[in-house]
Amino acid sequence: MQKYCSEMNHYSLPLEKVFFLNIPDANVPRIVIIGGGFAGLELARSLKNKAVQIVLLDKHNYHTFQPLLYQVATAGLEPDSIGHPLRKIFKGQKNLFFRLTEVSHIDPEKKVVYSSIGELAYDKVVIATGSDTNFFGNSELQHHGMSMKSIPEALDIRSLILQNFEEALLTSDLNEREALMNVIIVGAGPTGVELAGAISELRKHILPRDYPDLDVRRMSIRLIEASPRVLSAMSEKSSADALQALESLDVEVWLDTLVESYDGRIVKTKNGRTFVAKTLIWSAGVKGAPVKGIDAEVLTRNDRIEVDEFNRIKGIGGAYAVGDVSAMIDKENPRGHAMVAQVAIQQAANLAKNILAESKGKEPTPFKYKDLGSMATIGRNRAVVDLPKGHFRGFFAWVIWMLVHVVQLIGFRNKVLVLVNWTWNYVQYARDARLIIRPFKRNAERRSR
Amino acid sequence: MQKYCSEMNHYSLPLEKVFFLNIPDANVPRIVIIGGGFAGLELARSLKNKAVQIVLLDKHNYHTFQPLLYQVATAGLEPDSIGHPLRKIFKGQKNLFFRLTEVSHIDPEKKVVYSSIGELAYDKVVIATGSDTNFFGNSELQHHGMSMKSIPEALDIRSLILQNFEEALLTSDLNEREALMNVIIVGAGPTGVELAGAISELRKHILPRDYPDLDVRRMSIRLIEASPRVLSAMSEKSSADALQALESLDVEVWLDTLVESYDGRIVKTKNGRTFVAKTLIWSAGVKGAPVKGIDAEVLTRNDRIEVDEFNRIKGIGGAYAVGDVSAMIDKENPRGHAMVAQVAIQQAANLAKNILAESKGKEPTPFKYKDLGSMATIGRNRAVVDLPKGHFRGFFAWVIWMLVHVVQLIGFRNKVLVLVNWTWNYVQYARDARLIIRPFKRNAERRSR
Repeated sequence: MQKYCSEMNHYSLPLEKVFFLNIPDANVPRIVIIGGGFAGLELARSLKNKAVQIVLLDKHNYHTFQPLLYQVATAGLEPDSIGHPLRKIFKGQKNLFFRLTEVSHIDPEKKVVYSSIGELAYDKVVIATGSDTNFFGNSELQHHGMSMKSIPEALDIRSLILQNFEEALLTSDLNEREALMNVIIVGAGPTGVELAGAISELRKHILPRDYPDLDVRRMSIRLIEASPRVLSAMSEKSSADALQALESLDVEVWLDTLVESYDGRIVKTKNGRTFVAKTLIWSAGVKGAPVKGIDAEVLTRNDRIEVDEFNRIKGIGGAYAVGDVSAMIDKENPRGHAMVAQVAIQQAANLAKNILAESKGKEPTPFKYKDLGSMATIGRNRAVVDLPKGHFRGFFAWVIWMLVHVVQLIGFRNKVLVLVNWTWNYVQYARDARLIIRPFKRNAERRSR
Repeated sequence: MQKYCSEMNHYSLPLEKVFFLNIPDANVPRIVIIGGGFAGLELARSLKNKAVQIVLLDKHNYHTFQPLLYQVATAGLEPDSIGHPLRKIFKGQKNLFFRLTEVSHIDPEKKVVYSSIGELAYDKVVIATGSDTNFFGNSELQHHGMSMKSIPEALDIRSLILQNFEEALLTSDLNEREALMNVIIVGAGPTGVELAGAISELRKHILPRDYPDLDVRRMSIRLIEASPRVLSAMSEKSSADALQALESLDVEVWLDTLVESYDGRIVKTKNGRTFVAKTLIWSAGVKGAPVKGIDAEVLTRNDRIEVDEFNRIKGIGGAYAVGDVSAMIDKENPRGHAMVAQVAIQQAANLAKNILAESKGKEPTPFKYKDLGSMATIGRNRAVVDLPKGHFRGFFAWVIWMLVHVVQLIGFRNKVLVLVNWTWNYVQYARDARLIIRPFKRNAERRSR
């Protein structure tokens, strides 16, 4: 280890660069990780006690457990149960410095990261900025549609659905009332399907009790999907099972239907249909959320950064991208790996090993994805699970879904809180987090995410 | 009961008045309760299954358990654990209609309530709008100081303290760093004392681990009080014990000290002292939060509404005020009762009885306050309790404090969540809700409360 450290001594950085973010100089290489999601977290943890200085930058001071965002949006969980303080996660990790900031761009030539609080020179930079909602350039949809990539956005959806129900009570115009109650979800990937299931549980168990003066049976939940099946990334069996489950929950599923426009009230589809709803949640597309300064040539059509099998950004020395924001294109994955947590975690773990191998003069190992399976839940007691060697569904799948998610949650307290809430919600058919803490303002400038 | 109902038939309301809030007409008297705090809740529940129509109006869709707001502000509890959906509380109460709205004013002559969503005629109106922070007209203090009367305000305090610590990391100027870390609390009532204790626990157990690069020992927590003792509404013994507890937690207590100005950084006191802190929490004054339309003559100096011993607003027929917003002035209480939950609950219970008695032609009962005691906690393991027949303190008092608060919390789930959190926080010395979910913007327009 001693030898290892002294080998690193040539990594000294120009002093004037380091003072803005107030990161102490170190005689080991500095690795700047941008983003504290699954990939950033795994990488930073894997480099604990190694001869590197890690600077982790994130615009939030917490890690978000994104797979459960839909439960925050539907009042099943508190936001604080799925967020975990980054500083707590890295407590005692002496080679890590966290800074709360939004990165504006990087300069790969100068090897400098520029952020809202100053600039910082790096030896290696790892872009782990994840993904963003893709509205495919439709600014009207972006303005009126709700997206759900962060806790504040999930809270906005929670507020909006409740505000619309409160407003529905005030009108005697039955069409307007229905428009206020209706919910449209565009995109039937796991997020869209899980949201539709959860909102359908709200409609069944909560809203009729909360709003006895409204005829909640007239509330429609529509799930609109451009492709011919729901959960198109999963097995045909899972798609069929999920569709059946959704229909048994009275979710109207519209397949092969492309949404063209939404003005805050009326959805128009390419095949000529119109639907009316004052809540539209857009889960029909994700794109990479790269930092600026990356050559446009290495960006894919949906803004992911092209990387080689070692997660190195093509043509840029000392720069890496991992997780959703990266696209590792090969024969099996012509558009890169799926944008899911498992890929992010495995890529980050592999990258950590390669960074350490490289410093010892060893050859890096190419990334190889180990598919652990995928799953989605559809309301109470129902889920579909695809394993590499088979598919199952129903109550048992739903229990597995819960166990896997609780185990993956960061922090013991969060696990306990989520279990308490789930038990309570299950036994009582309850969704007690239906609080409008910060009202959503329709036409106001979008709040911080 | 049948007779009772038919007696009420003369209470018909002009139809054109009732459509805006969309409250159905009823052939029983309509009681509009403004505010879903302790008083409004108690009153509305006590009138369940009685021959009255209750319309409850609140600007939030949840009840706030205010005694634990300081724990939300200091990251010990999630906001959702101390808020409970009003619609859930009144589930199945058929004679109650809840509307989410802010009341702008009332017209006692016409007997109409005006709100952001329309107007509503009433037979009786009960103002239960509680209290607001009193900055005594000092607009500079109001602009720069933080107040804590609602969940959003408590979240703003939580965000600001954390944001200031993040910012403290970025400066090499030690004075600026201290200013960012320091906290000043003005007003040593229960809120100020409990806040100071909780922030001191943060300084002891959390902040040094989260910010190893900052010398957290240099962070000062100052509690400034204009009167000669802390907890001046409690017994001398409690004051002395609380002071001792605060000092053992290294809270600097400044008694007999009146704050004169605060510019966002420097506090000046009337006796010529200056303190530097970028976080100032103002808990030095409360005032009534009456609705407009009440004759200024019946308002006390601190904006409470003068009521007689039956909580009737003086000189206005069919109008009542209960809880913090009311001032029932008598020999024992020349400035009205204390602005605490117990008074609110007892007044509301008495008013409910009187409303029902009156409808049966019986005499109303004057309010008589039954003092159940008062208490305050100061950090971990310490509390002071004043009972009508004695005083105690220390660990046992602290356990009593917790039990009483858990029992009073609305909703079984909230009780469980609070207990889980408290156990976790106690065993682990943890405060895991230290998340900046919506950053506080210093000079932006104040957000909705």
